[in-house]
Amino acid sequence: MPIDFAAKKALFHLPEGVIYLDGNSLGPMVKTAPAAVDRVVQAEWGELLIRGWNKAGWMAQPAALGNRVGKLIGAEPGTVVLGDTLSIKVYQALASALEMTPKRRVILSDTGNFPSDLYMAEGLCRTLGGQYRLKTVAPEEAMAAIDETTAVVMLTEVDYRTGRRHHMADITARAHEMGAITVWDLAHSAGALPVDLAGAKADFAVGCTYKYLNSGPGGPAFIYVAPRHAEVARPALSGWLGHAAPFAFDLDYRPGAGIERMRVGTPPVLQMATLEAAMDVWNGVDMAEVHAQSLRLQDQFIKGVEARVKGLTLATPRSHLMRGSQVSFRHPEGYAIMQALIAEGVIGDFRAPDILRFGFTPLYIDEDDVARAVSILARIIDYGTWDKPEFKARAAVT
Amino acid sequence: MPIDFAAKKALFHLPEGVIYLDGNSLGPMVKTAPAAVDRVVQAEWGELLIRGWNKAGWMAQPAALGNRVGKLIGAEPGTVVLGDTLSIKVYQALASALEMTPKRRVILSDTGNFPSDLYMAEGLCRTLGGQYRLKTVAPEEAMAAIDETTAVVMLTEVDYRTGRRHHMADITARAHEMGAITVWDLAHSAGALPVDLAGAKADFAVGCTYKYLNSGPGGPAFIYVAPRHAEVARPALSGWLGHAAPFAFDLDYRPGAGIERMRVGTPPVLQMATLEAAMDVWNGVDMAEVHAQSLRLQDQFIKGVEARVKGLTLATPRSHLMRGSQVSFRHPEGYAIMQALIAEGVIGDFRAPDILRFGFTPLYIDEDDVARAVSILARIIDYGTWDKPEFKARAAVT
Repeated sequence: MPIDFAAKKALFHLPEGVIYLDGNSLGPMVKTAPAAVDRVVQAEWGELLIRGWNKAGWMAQPAALGNRVGKLIGAEPGTVVLGDTLSIKVYQALASALEMTPKRRVILSDTGNFPSDLYMAEGLCRTLGGQYRLKTVAPEEAMAAIDETTAVVMLTEVDYRTGRRHHMADITARAHEMGAITVWDLAHSAGALPVDLAGAKADFAVGCTYKYLNSGPGGPAFIYVAPRHAEVARPALSGWLGHAAPFAFDLDYRPGAGIERMRVGTPPVLQMATLEAAMDVWNGVDMAEVHAQSLRLQDQFIKGVEARVKGLTLATPRSHLMRGSQVSFRHPEGYAIMQALIAEGVIGDFRAPDILRFGFTPLYIDEDDVARAVSILARIIDYGTWDKPEFKARAAVT
Repeated sequence: MPIDFAAKKALFHLPEGVIYLDGNSLGPMVKTAPAAVDRVVQAEWGELLIRGWNKAGWMAQPAALGNRVGKLIGAEPGTVVLGDTLSIKVYQALASALEMTPKRRVILSDTGNFPSDLYMAEGLCRTLGGQYRLKTVAPEEAMAAIDETTAVVMLTEVDYRTGRRHHMADITARAHEMGAITVWDLAHSAGALPVDLAGAKADFAVGCTYKYLNSGPGGPAFIYVAPRHAEVARPALSGWLGHAAPFAFDLDYRPGAGIERMRVGTPPVLQMATLEAAMDVWNGVDMAEVHAQSLRLQDQFIKGVEARVKGLTLATPRSHLMRGSQVSFRHPEGYAIMQALIAEGVIGDFRAPDILRFGFTPLYIDEDDVARAVSILARIIDYGTWDKPEFKARAAVT
């Protein structure tokens, strides 16, 4: 049955007068989220207190929600667990992967990867000692750069700036052919497009839930470990909730079974509540259909902008096969233009040095929104309304 | 002005018929918490969406709340930041400390440290390579075991099982004399007793907020770095929000100024909201007075149990100087006895193999609560009501 996008849109709260093209940065709230978190706060924490860990199922939630997220990314049951932040999960995946390729010393990534992934890799290399190094190449050169020195290929499937999409299956196959392990960052994939981790034979994957999965600011990250690695992967960040028997309080660490070992400390129960509420919107949703509709909205936006707006250069590939769920344009005054757009209620975001980034999330964005966004952008450029001091002054968070 | 404990107790929500002696595991909810988190969910996330990072101050909150927590633990302004879990913060502190003692290879801890701290240290040693090791000694031998091979002394100030308290200033002085760095875990100290990190010349400290600071299940952890180390400490988990310019999206990591570098990924904004609400109860509170009152309640409990209850052995030191905010008794059937107590509304907790653990948190526990808890415990033991299958069957989380 095709998705009733209007019915899905009705599940979200969107502020009056806002066209929200920034779900690729922070997803909006589902209408059930406030009651869900309030129930966890008042009925669970308030009334059950410490008993909530058992009686309200808090302890089992990271794996239970992992299975729900796993369905959206083609993961086998029992291979995904929630917790920590994406950067932490990158570190765990990388450290595990490096131990599986003991004679190799190079982490290969690309210059379009999200900087935090690169920073975490740099930090890990330094902790491991001088012999390890992070090598970055241009995104389009990543596949060819995989060689017999590559220990780990660490890539974000969809580029956070341009929206350019790597071909996960091909790159993974090439990595395996050369004896390397893959770590895929799904920050801009999970909930945005069809991902088939099992089919692509991905080794490790990580992602966040506050973008396309709408868990709210600071929602937990997730990690996937392929079943063939589950019992050999070493968590590196070996916390008590990843222990085989956390409540035995042994002095020595023994990793838990499978994906459970990737847990570290106490899960963020309140943030899990809003994630759980947001996961309900995916019931009966086919990711291929979501992505197809996103591409239609993207094409409408690109066509509209190119027809009516001067001075913007498309940064996103034109090929549907190389696109995620966002469209980016370059403009030397991108920051000020984005501020002017936000002041008019069209919320996208800016990424240094010159990228205007727009997310097209069809669960709550429709053709009318896209048409209005194009008109407002055209007006801002035509009238030069972005060229004011209040739009040019940079905020702390951009 | 002395603390009006009855007025403080009125700030907390405690379920009908419950005497909550488990604030050392998960603190209860302050009455303002539900509205605080609801405001962040609906008015901030719901209405501001991505703009919340600037307009609602989400990005600045880890450091702002760090300063509030810092006041309770004798930290200098700008030396504490919130985020992640305690285990993650232990890893960061340890990794930084080891780099400051480059020729030494031993992390010294004690067998009373919380296992997750030991597990994280084990994991770090393995990541660093075979030459590093974790050495554990009995708690009372920790001070004497510090020698010229010790790189880092990693201790939890108050033992999670027995409530035994280390002398932070003396052990820190001894560590420095021997050329070692200290990492103090304040999980059972922050909000429980006076801590003077600056006065003790502590190097690093970490702690959680869901116990005595009442932030709710999964609330964020904190880390302290002494000002003299702030610009040399390497975060190891070098995430983008610890970068000197996170929104420049540089490809290379440059640590942020001071404590900011210990941030990793996106902060848990909802969990920060409940922490912020809970911090208000500390206004005008002198920690020395809180601890003195806790010791009075503890003494009342010990005296009552020893006078009226047979078969329990005190595990907590009798000296006030060696106590935190909890009293522990040993009993071979401790698990079943604790379950029977919980069924009667007296909530403490059990720690393997035989510890019954009771927290005395005077902001919401008073003399009447203690007297009733003693009576109920005496009745359970006198009548043997704990000796039933339903109390002996272990739950997943104990």
